[in-house]
Amino acid sequence: MMQKNHKTILEETSELRTNVTDLFDKLRDQLCNSLETYETKLKSNSKKFQKDSWSRAGGGGGVSSLLKGIIFEKAGVHTSTVYGDLPPGVLEKSNNSKLSNQFWASGISVIIHPKNPFIPSAHMNLRMIISEDYWFGGGADLTPMLTNKRSQEDSDTKLFHKSMRKACNNHTNANFEVFKKNCDEYFIIKHRNENRGTGGIFFDNYKSANSVDDLDFLESVGRNFIEAYCNIIEMNINREWTHSDREQQLFYRGRYVEFNLMYDKGTIFGLKTGGNINSILSSLPPLVSW
Amino acid sequence: MMQKNHKTILEETSELRTNVTDLFDKLRDQLCNSLETYETKLKSNSKKFQKDSWSRAGGGGGVSSLLKGIIFEKAGVHTSTVYGDLPPGVLEKSNNSKLSNQFWASGISVIIHPKNPFIPSAHMNLRMIISEDYWFGGGADLTPMLTNKRSQEDSDTKLFHKSMRKACNNHTNANFEVFKKNCDEYFIIKHRNENRGTGGIFFDNYKSANSVDDLDFLESVGRNFIEAYCNIIEMNINREWTHSDREQQLFYRGRYVEFNLMYDKGTIFGLKTGGNINSILSSLPPLVSW
Repeated sequence: MMQKNHKTILEETSELRTNVTDLFDKLRDQLCNSLETYETKLKSNSKKFQKDSWSRAGGGGGVSSLLKGIIFEKAGVHTSTVYGDLPPGVLEKSNNSKLSNQFWASGISVIIHPKNPFIPSAHMNLRMIISEDYWFGGGADLTPMLTNKRSQEDSDTKLFHKSMRKACNNHTNANFEVFKKNCDEYFIIKHRNENRGTGGIFFDNYKSANSVDDLDFLESVGRNFIEAYCNIIEMNINREWTHSDREQQLFYRGRYVEFNLMYDKGTIFGLKTGGNINSILSSLPPLVSW
Repeated sequence: MMQKNHKTILEETSELRTNVTDLFDKLRDQLCNSLETYETKLKSNSKKFQKDSWSRAGGGGGVSSLLKGIIFEKAGVHTSTVYGDLPPGVLEKSNNSKLSNQFWASGISVIIHPKNPFIPSAHMNLRMIISEDYWFGGGADLTPMLTNKRSQEDSDTKLFHKSMRKACNNHTNANFEVFKKNCDEYFIIKHRNENRGTGGIFFDNYKSANSVDDLDFLESVGRNFIEAYCNIIEMNINREWTHSDREQQLFYRGRYVEFNLMYDKGTIFGLKTGGNINSILSSLPPLVSW
């Protein structure tokens, strides 16, 4: 495909961009409502998501939705649409040849750290990026917080992988096996040679000839993530945990922090491009031990 | 000074290296004994440092001393002497023109995270490095964990700075004002534009014509650190804290982790050169919130 300039691409994707940001808002609302439902079942103390809007000095902004609840010790659901010039230094360090110094990016990012150690932590994000071209990226993955759940044979993980396989079905460019391998290779805590969790899918530079189908794929990842994670919550929410289970959870949360602060490209890119610090670092678990 | 090869420098510094490693062992024992004394005053539950030796595949090893006590929620005192070839990638990313691919390095590293939020966390390290030349480095700094103690006017911080100034006295190449500025510039959490704590001293590439005086300076930093920190412990150990004080402490510990995992050169260098992961990451606080 011939390279076009940034402004032309922005104009040509006007409708698509609106549909993408609408989708991200819809997924946010659906997920927040689902999680709040579990909280409100505990009538005595029903916690809600707190929404905060922020704007970015260079252009754009977002909405941070944060829940510090009884079931969900910390859950962050963030949508943002930012644009403008990339700060110096970002381009040189990026391996992405499609990046120019102008960009437009919209995304949804989800991190859930439940209180009950039997319920795994989960992460999902979807994004559209426009520079001299446009493309999609994202993924979803599961992080069980108990040693004997941290295997590919664990029922939560099997259910999750099955749902991500389903999300990839019928989208020509979506290859579950490849995306699963990407995910395993990405979420490695290099200094320990350990995976952060039990994986899921991860994709970048995603673009087919049919942008309607691409958007449909993003929606499918989002909806399958919500459905699968709610099933996993229900499979575990009534399990009683011991002090030792909680200690294991705090321990694996430490591993989670090591990955996010040392290796996660989204975190590092976000902090360097003047993203919202609280949104970016809301991925960090509420309580952690080393 | 003319550059010599690594082997020649190793031979010429044979006695100095022995004296350096002996000093680090002595400082470790003195500090561990001092901290254990505070623990043993609580007769009901006296915790001791647990010592673990480790060896490095490429050459050398160390001793990790870790205390998880009542007064000191987590204290790590580590000595190590490692040598051999630098792994690929480390040289290219280092700004230090004195590094060749062969090195010898000995150091002591101390991190103390007390339970009582009124007692600041403290860090000290001293090292000797030999490559195509030899030099010393190190520093000591204080991290108060309550908002209203995080100022240059705080009495703990004033005492600490005074003691570090004293450590620099009578050593021609030790300039407290310069070392204090180094420290302030080093311990910055860049994405927040905040300092990790209230500072202290930081020096690198330290070497005078008189290696006896250099060693004396390292000893002076170590002994003044121990004396000053014990004074700070005693000024605060009997202060009662509230739940809100503890929350502030866990909050600032989060900032501490952000710095150590994202910006601390020692952490990153250590993990890349196959150092002992548990020793290196023992700098991370025992319990942290975000």
